[in-house]
Amino acid sequence: MLLRDPVHDLVTFEADEERIVPELLATSEMQRLRRIKQLGVTHLVFPGAEHSRFTHAIGASHVMTRLIRRLRALHDELPFWQRLASDRARDALAASLLHDVGHGPYSHLFEEAIAGAPHHESWSLRIVRDPGTEVHQKLVRIDPGLPERIASLISGGEDPHPYPLPYLAHAVSGTFDVDRCDYLLRDAHMTGVRYGLFDLDWLLRSLRFSPHTDGSPPRFAIDGMKGLPAIEGFVLARRFMFEQVYLHKATRAAEVLIKAIFARAAMLVRDGTRLDPIPRALELAAHGEQIPLGAYLDLDDVTIGAAFMAWCDTRDPVLADLCRRLRVRRIGKTVELTGENAHPERADDLVQQARELCVAAGLEPDAHVALDIAEDVQSFGDAETEGSEPPLDVVLADGRARPLGAVSVLLARLDNVPIRRTRLVVPPEIRDEVVLRVGGGRDGTGVP
Amino acid sequence: MLLRDPVHDLVTFEADEERIVPELLATSEMQRLRRIKQLGVTHLVFPGAEHSRFTHAIGASHVMTRLIRRLRALHDELPFWQRLASDRARDALAASLLHDVGHGPYSHLFEEAIAGAPHHESWSLRIVRDPGTEVHQKLVRIDPGLPERIASLISGGEDPHPYPLPYLAHAVSGTFDVDRCDYLLRDAHMTGVRYGLFDLDWLLRSLRFSPHTDGSPPRFAIDGMKGLPAIEGFVLARRFMFEQVYLHKATRAAEVLIKAIFARAAMLVRDGTRLDPIPRALELAAHGEQIPLGAYLDLDDVTIGAAFMAWCDTRDPVLADLCRRLRVRRIGKTVELTGENAHPERADDLVQQARELCVAAGLEPDAHVALDIAEDVQSFGDAETEGSEPPLDVVLADGRARPLGAVSVLLARLDNVPIRRTRLVVPPEIRDEVVLRVGGGRDGTGVP
Amino acid sequence: MLLRDPVHDLVTFEADEERIVPELLATSEMQRLRRIKQLGVTHLVFPGAEHSRFTHAIGASHVMTRLIRRLRALHDELPFWQRLASDRARDALAASLLHDVGHGPYSHLFEEAIAGAPHHESWSLRIVRDPGTEVHQKLVRIDPGLPERIASLISGGEDPHPYPLPYLAHAVSGTFDVDRCDYLLRDAHMTGVRYGLFDLDWLLRSLRFSPHTDGSPPRFAIDGMKGLPAIEGFVLARRFMFEQVYLHKATRAAEVLIKAIFARAAMLVRDGTRLDPIPRALELAAHGEQIPLGAYLDLDDVTIGAAFMAWCDTRDPVLADLCRRLRVRRIGKTVELTGENAHPERADDLVQQARELCVAAGLEPDAHVALDIAEDVQSFGDAETEGSEPPLDVVLADGRARPLGAVSVLLARLDNVPIRRTRLVVPPEIRDEVVLRVGGGRDGTGVP
Amino acid sequence: MLLRDPVHDLVTFEADEERIVPELLATSEMQRLRRIKQLGVTHLVFPGAEHSRFTHAIGASHVMTRLIRRLRALHDELPFWQRLASDRARDALAASLLHDVGHGPYSHLFEEAIAGAPHHESWSLRIVRDPGTEVHQKLVRIDPGLPERIASLISGGEDPHPYPLPYLAHAVSGTFDVDRCDYLLRDAHMTGVRYGLFDLDWLLRSLRFSPHTDGSPPRFAIDGMKGLPAIEGFVLARRFMFEQVYLHKATRAAEVLIKAIFARAAMLVRDGTRLDPIPRALELAAHGEQIPLGAYLDLDDVTIGAAFMAWCDTRDPVLADLCRRLRVRRIGKTVELTGENAHPERADDLVQQARELCVAAGLEPDAHVALDIAEDVQSFGDAETEGSEPPLDVVLADGRARPLGAVSVLLARLDNVPIRRTRLVVPPEIRDEVVLRVGGGRDGTGVP
Repeated sequence: MLLRDPVHDLVTFEADEERIVPELLATSEMQRLRRIKQLGVTHLVFPGAEHSRFTHAIGASHVMTRLIRRLRALHDELPFWQRLASDRARDALAASLLHDVGHGPYSHLFEEAIAGAPHHESWSLRIVRDPGTEVHQKLVRIDPGLPERIASLISGGEDPHPYPLPYLAHAVSGTFDVDRCDYLLRDAHMTGVRYGLFDLDWLLRSLRFSPHTDGSPPRFAIDGMKGLPAIEGFVLARRFMFEQVYLHKATRAAEVLIKAIFARAAMLVRDGTRLDPIPRALELAAHGEQIPLGAYLDLDDVTIGAAFMAWCDTRDPVLADLCRRLRVRRIGKTVELTGENAHPERADDLVQQARELCVAAGLEPDAHVALDIAEDVQSFGDAETEGSEPPLDVVLADGRARPLGAVSVLLARLDNVPIRRTRLVVPPEIRDEVVLRVGGGRDGTGVP
Repeated sequence: MLLRDPVHDLVTFEADEERIVPELLATSEMQRLRRIKQLGVTHLVFPGAEHSRFTHAIGASHVMTRLIRRLRALHDELPFWQRLASDRARDALAASLLHDVGHGPYSHLFEEAIAGAPHHESWSLRIVRDPGTEVHQKLVRIDPGLPERIASLISGGEDPHPYPLPYLAHAVSGTFDVDRCDYLLRDAHMTGVRYGLFDLDWLLRSLRFSPHTDGSPPRFAIDGMKGLPAIEGFVLARRFMFEQVYLHKATRAAEVLIKAIFARAAMLVRDGTRLDPIPRALELAAHGEQIPLGAYLDLDDVTIGAAFMAWCDTRDPVLADLCRRLRVRRIGKTVELTGENAHPERADDLVQQARELCVAAGLEPDAHVALDIAEDVQSFGDAETEGSEPPLDVVLADGRARPLGAVSVLLARLDNVPIRRTRLVVPPEIRDEVVLRVGGGRDGTGVP
Repeated sequence: MLLRDPVHDLVTFEADEERIVPELLATSEMQRLRRIKQLGVTHLVFPGAEHSRFTHAIGASHVMTRLIRRLRALHDELPFWQRLASDRARDALAASLLHDVGHGPYSHLFEEAIAGAPHHESWSLRIVRDPGTEVHQKLVRIDPGLPERIASLISGGEDPHPYPLPYLAHAVSGTFDVDRCDYLLRDAHMTGVRYGLFDLDWLLRSLRFSPHTDGSPPRFAIDGMKGLPAIEGFVLARRFMFEQVYLHKATRAAEVLIKAIFARAAMLVRDGTRLDPIPRALELAAHGEQIPLGAYLDLDDVTIGAAFMAWCDTRDPVLADLCRRLRVRRIGKTVELTGENAHPERADDLVQQARELCVAAGLEPDAHVALDIAEDVQSFGDAETEGSEPPLDVVLADGRARPLGAVSVLLARLDNVPIRRTRLVVPPEIRDEVVLRVGGGRDGTGVP
Repeated sequence: MLLRDPVHDLVTFEADEERIVPELLATSEMQRLRRIKQLGVTHLVFPGAEHSRFTHAIGASHVMTRLIRRLRALHDELPFWQRLASDRARDALAASLLHDVGHGPYSHLFEEAIAGAPHHESWSLRIVRDPGTEVHQKLVRIDPGLPERIASLISGGEDPHPYPLPYLAHAVSGTFDVDRCDYLLRDAHMTGVRYGLFDLDWLLRSLRFSPHTDGSPPRFAIDGMKGLPAIEGFVLARRFMFEQVYLHKATRAAEVLIKAIFARAAMLVRDGTRLDPIPRALELAAHGEQIPLGAYLDLDDVTIGAAFMAWCDTRDPVLADLCRRLRVRRIGKTVELTGENAHPERADDLVQQARELCVAAGLEPDAHVALDIAEDVQSFGDAETEGSEPPLDVVLADGRARPLGAVSVLLARLDNVPIRRTRLVVPPEIRDEVVLRVGGGRDGTGVP
């Protein structure tokens, strides 16, 4: 299989061990990802961000082919039993392609808006394991052990059985994984912001294994001072993308609108109001019932989008109004809360005032006012201060490994420095009044 | 308005005359273009081609802002009454944004599959003129004469009244227009093929007006030998994109599938079979009735896509089968017909044989077999041999203007040299047998 | 004048006020810059870095044309007497072109190696002012006041008379000036490191004037939160380029070699040894005499390079050896000194040991051993903590201006955080032994 | 060895077989290429074109590493004895690096201006074979047979012994060779014209071997229809570069000036005039004597450039004037001769008139007037119509090979279509008068 890609140019899956990629792409579960935008509503803010999870999945597998080539160049750093045989490579390629197969439309929002809805990662595992899916059937036809090995890789290499090459599990899902490599580049490219661009060539070349004298399994490290700027660039790319795109105020306001639609629709369903069309998965979730896999897989941007469009004319005025706002991109306004205003009590008080202004304007406050706290933080420090996964080490010229944060002045300065935004999201109708109350500037961003 | 764009990077509409762009973008008719892919089914072949007509429309307007800047630098080549005043610039920007607003999903296929369906260009004019649209209302609020001036620009500067600056009409729709400038770059970028890339900076800089001693209105020309490679690159970019993308065999096969779905659905509707959901515009078109604007505007990738997905379970086995094939991207195979095989009688005979093979395989031949003749041709010659619009001239150092084909050795050699592909599209089930009959090679492309 | 440029693509100087650029380019003083590499010996480390100060000067003027366009879009933020009239724009363009015209080959090294050699900036001023130069003659022919106005702009807007538009002096030479904009992009591009790439489009668009209620002259600022990532990217680009290119260990070692050649040649000249050829400026500098402008202008990569090549066969064995090492790129090795080793006494001790090892190896220590301390630091804080020029402010939504370091979390963390490298440069012959003494790692970098 | 490159980004020579590259780079003969501009005087027209033959040589070797990787993926298309073993790969890498090592400064001009000067290709062979060169010594230390094998590869695989893998000789020097791949990309990049950009990734992927049933050795071919646009792009890139850069009128005029300087200097030397400095190779060539290798290797841009600069003050007024013109880039003007004017007798007559105008203006006609006929032509046809090397075939789906020109409509149209420019080069002083005589346009280009 030869493909063109706007991010990676020429993409090929031609080797024997790579044939699993085109095989899996031809399943309805993978094809469904064509109908799910990678960045949900972000295209309302960055129009170019129309790419799907399908192209991202291909991109992640492409990065995996390159990573595999690099790892094989490092084979003499590995004990024989940790080398990357062809069947392991095939596992990794399949896992990198399937790691997001369980995503639904606006996945995070759906999960947040409807209590009890299962998490998208558990859906990926179900798709891999359920004998009814085309993905599962393809996998077992190749090797009956594949579904479980892939499930293990997707879920971090621990569950249900430890994956024999732990570093491969980290390559599927870790601090430096093929998923992140592709999505940072792709999202930066498509949004046009550029900030997510880092030097993938150099980064792959800088990858090596941490020296391991204690019998613990090999893990990724950065090769000496040469690799430092590459990994710094990678970390900064992620930070910039969070600041500029993922936590962008208008993106977050659009997400608040989507969540309000989901929540209102679920409430109506629970109350017995008939919505037409209503995706079955949404109906079940509203009632707190289990969602069968088939119903879940019917959810995509098309079915959800068709419902949102149709609900513009539904009888419930609040839901109809919300959907119409979405249709003409009349999203909420954000008022940044900083300093005093960001303190919990003061913020709650401001929310309350905004809700009252809503009521006075004839708007349903539950549907229009939200306190949005967006946060991201990264650590580059010692293994002890980290969660489940050890961070990347840097292997110095004398062969010793040091934590990234101990070698990079830049990253040491950014260690555990959060990006945090507290915002009040309100309807455009009451924005000016809210700004006055918050005491912010001319355009209401209320920045210090 | 400041935007990021994957093709043009920074896009701004900030000058007074440019404010019309954000105004129009906030209408439901423009927002609808977010839900219509620029290249229809092409993303099934070039996965990256997921961009919408919305981003293309913004891009075309952006190129117009740059063209306007260039034209103003040429003001002293123009008689006073032909200069580009601010209101004319606004007309041009609005027209470049709206020129494709009437596109439907898979527009050309829809029009071809259902006899009598109105052409997408007439829909653009209706949207601009219909007092019920948000676009029209925005326009008249700015200037009551705007809708008719824009209609004139969109339709080539002739209808209903001649547009006072004919060169501006050519900039909206002509051999070298902002539409083509953006779509070649954008489609090349998104498909990842690169061949559509040309040097827009240099091309704009090379643009000037043809000398006009006879009182005829000024028209675009290329500035001397410096501009020649830029315009050659532009023409070649278009040729490459046709060969590699627009007329790609798999793209064409996917289009055959979409047309078959439309045609089958229309047939069922005419026969009284109930399809659910069935977009109202499709139902009316099937019955040969007029489509109200509102019903037309409800058509987009979401509504059509939702229907296609739902029809996977419809009772008509042929339609259900076609929709399921689309869902897993099981598109037809193409067999290239060349030499003898491309002669009409022989081709018809091969079609007949393929139909019989279909029947034998239990497949409906009308839904699965097609003779696909794709062609594109360009002329760079004298004005006399050309259709409605005169081609670009080159203005030489001595001030004389010559036709492009008389100055460029390269283009002279390509003048009226068509790209032509005759292909038999057949279902995968019978491909091998058809290849044998056609007498082609190992993978059945039958190339000479 | 239309040019192509590998960094900026299309470069034009066509407007009336821009005609001064091609005029000045046609002088022998500007043409001389073609024979001086922008990055001196860096191409020995990054082979692509072969670009000259000539292309950089054109690039800086090009950025100035773009900056001028942006500043004019901001005219209503300025009092009438501070607006950018056409003659001021011409001043700025000429100054941006001429700011580096006084550079010699390996300028900094020359100045450091030979005590009393005048600084390259003073040479730029002399070239502008000296009635004998073609540059001066061109300038006075256009406007007799031009040389002094340009001298003022080049020297920071203060000297000899304050330049009437202080912000224009900062655009020629300041924290955010056209010189730096071009050299970061160009050096990053040519070395291939990419890290110097920042978003010039967005940065220019983000530029505005700081609000000035106190009658002080307008100065540059960044426009709100939108401009923040652009200026952060600019600052980081500079930091990365220092770390990866300008202070690269092999670059510094090559510079040590060049300095040793200059110093040895000067010593020989002072001692009465005849070197052939010997550029006159070098001879005079060695004797501590004044260098006439004509002799200075004869210095370039060609005359210096020809001398270095010829000296490979000179009678002094130390000089001949140094020149031969340069010819085959046998540059010194660096041993990084960190922790204890970087303390002055310990470092001096290590230098002494290296010198002794040199002697033992039959090498002249003065010519081969150096302690190289490279440092760069930037501040983004309050005006008070800064030197002559106030740093950029950020203008927030409410119209207030705040220091960059107070708004940007990232830059606050990097404020006054130096890049500092202490290295011992030694000949390859004794490297291994020195590494042992220093106690560093396998390849002797001695990193902690 | 890890390098950065402005064209290819990351360049590595790390495998065992690649170690020969850094070994050879460390010789004085390769380092000398740093002092020879790849495009001679072209930087006077395209300022960015300052890159050296050194970076091009690295680039060609880098393309060779990629080509080797591709060829190995095709190993099963090859008989066992034609496969690319590690020592063959090393041969190819060394040859691609050394193929241009014999270039002198302005090589072609030097050869044309001074009758009997040996051709640069024969110098490359001498450098490889001469026991006195560092290159030769490095090679024999690795393998005593290396110099002759490399000589065979450089000279087309025939001489002195046929190279056992003929396709490898074509990869070093052929229609599609690594030299051309790099120089088209690099020259396009550095001049900024972009037209030389083609899709190297896709082109390499499209390469395969022509089917060979007759026992003849395998040769390169293009893989089916997929590779067609890539090879078309490659051919067009070359054509555009010739039209826009290599045969650019100002480049050619600058070359005429260099040739005039060489010719005048040689004449003076022959007449016994003492020039100081005078490179020994130039002196010997002027006298028609043999040039020893050492004297030849002393020629580079530095030694020639130093002479040109010094000769600005030489006693011969004609030579001094020519050198001064070069110093301030006062190159000749070109008058394009087309139609009647290009006929030999008419052209000669115009040359005569220009010479007389020169005399009248007090200028030496031999030094200032030239008839410059630039031509390039390519063939894509049958092997019979071609010279020594068979052109690339296209392997179609059915396994048959067809000539490129028979499959590509575009290339068939350009087959044997020459680029031809006939120009009169005259000093600026007489340009206007010449234009009048030629009967051309306003700026004297005299285009039809």
